[in-house]
Amino acid sequence: MHLSDAERQGIGAGSVIRRKEEGGFECVTDEVTIEEPLEIRLGADSLAVTMRTPGNDEELAAGFLLSEGVVRKRTDLKGIAHCTLPASLGNVLNVALAPSVKFTPASARRFGTISTSCGLCGKTSIEFIRQQFPAIDLSSRLEIKEATLLELPARLRSAQGNFARTGGIHAAGIFDLDGKAIVVREDIGRHNAVDKVIGRAFLDGALPLSRHILVVSGRSSLEIVQKALAAGIPIVAAVSAPSSLAVNFARECGQTLIGFLRPPTFNVYSHVERVV
Amino acid sequence: MHLSDAERQGIGAGSVIRRKEEGGFECVTDEVTIEEPLEIRLGADSLAVTMRTPGNDEELAAGFLLSEGVVRKRTDLKGIAHCTLPASLGNVLNVALAPSVKFTPASARRFGTISTSCGLCGKTSIEFIRQQFPAIDLSSRLEIKEATLLELPARLRSAQGNFARTGGIHAAGIFDLDGKAIVVREDIGRHNAVDKVIGRAFLDGALPLSRHILVVSGRSSLEIVQKALAAGIPIVAAVSAPSSLAVNFARECGQTLIGFLRPPTFNVYSHVERVV
Repeated sequence: MHLSDAERQGIGAGSVIRRKEEGGFECVTDEVTIEEPLEIRLGADSLAVTMRTPGNDEELAAGFLLSEGVVRKRTDLKGIAHCTLPASLGNVLNVALAPSVKFTPASARRFGTISTSCGLCGKTSIEFIRQQFPAIDLSSRLEIKEATLLELPARLRSAQGNFARTGGIHAAGIFDLDGKAIVVREDIGRHNAVDKVIGRAFLDGALPLSRHILVVSGRSSLEIVQKALAAGIPIVAAVSAPSSLAVNFARECGQTLIGFLRPPTFNVYSHVERVV
Repeated sequence: MHLSDAERQGIGAGSVIRRKEEGGFECVTDEVTIEEPLEIRLGADSLAVTMRTPGNDEELAAGFLLSEGVVRKRTDLKGIAHCTLPASLGNVLNVALAPSVKFTPASARRFGTISTSCGLCGKTSIEFIRQQFPAIDLSSRLEIKEATLLELPARLRSAQGNFARTGGIHAAGIFDLDGKAIVVREDIGRHNAVDKVIGRAFLDGALPLSRHILVVSGRSSLEIVQKALAAGIPIVAAVSAPSSLAVNFARECGQTLIGFLRPPTFNVYSHVERVV
């Protein structure tokens, strides 16, 4: 490799050694997705720490609290604000709940949707979540057109800016049934991107999103469809594969789950009656 | 959509409605990646619950305990066994530590590499982890050939079986510096796949893996390079992008971090001196 000693020993911040197609090397600048921890605090208690891409932190926290069943309606959340201590470096959020909200951090020692269940099979996980959130009403005859569905991946990409540059970020978007983007967010974590979009809708008092579709750039695991259900979203579409538990959950909870949404094809794993 | 009523109302287990390129639909069978919770227990305490693809659970638990600094050498781990109660459904593992291991679950209430740090910026996260695990020795003059590196993605794919079928699984592999696969594992979670491969090496008494390379099929975030460091691995290569914190961590801890390993090109983000 033909590099100077300085290049061989260490690469400066923002620079990277790239192997070229013909076998040579070049030192180029490179943008990487920012990853920093975010701590969500409730009074003296630390509720959770998540590795996230900074930005829209309040939305992330609101979406997280909604997904975990801590808050259910807009008035449950009294306030969210970054800690103003310099040592927190913008990575600590203080949350205040309305006095009427019954929640003690000790009772929810372990967060994460699944860890609050106890039977520890997929079936009991699903049952536990179903007790927390109502299933989608199957009698509401909502429909999405194939043509609209097929446009969504391109609309998601055009609404996001970072991926093209860094290649290392996930996107989530909420669209209406005509394919209009309501909110699109990016994050290094798939679940964080979803928390941000449903958190935005929660903060805007727009829940339940009963005539909307959640689109994610990657795979759909249980936590993705569960977060959609927490926001009342009846249709979830992912560019990549679903997991077994996501499929079972969507079937039981009345959600339409679409995977491998890569025009001109896609798969429908549950409640296909909504795709027309 | 030309489907029978039965097809429109519900899709049977293992079946999926697929849109064809020319616009028609077909009902086909589809394999999806299995996702189930795994609880890791120590006596009466639940240490962690992770959503994983069943299989090689003991390796996953061993790799997790190693990454979290609970165990450091093979003799620290007295035993790992699935709970034999039928209700556990194969999703609960009981772990026994050697009496000499100083660990109380209460002191590690929150797991996850980062959540044990407190300063909550990337910098303090890195410092915390560096206190737990020794950095890679830069004086050991190990090298990997470009040609070997470029072969690794194909070797990883050929060693894994599930991805081709389901499209929804991550792979991690440990290779020696000649490109020979030591162990390759798959999981729906990136971190779980890495825990499984380093857990296998731990259980075999093969640590530190000081002349080896970790290859992952997806992105590299902080937790991936941190798990590699816990196993003493000096080189990490990912098919996709690294995060900012992964790059900073690798630079500070003496690891060579390679990203976008997609022949014939790749990027080197740190300690390029090992690539020859």
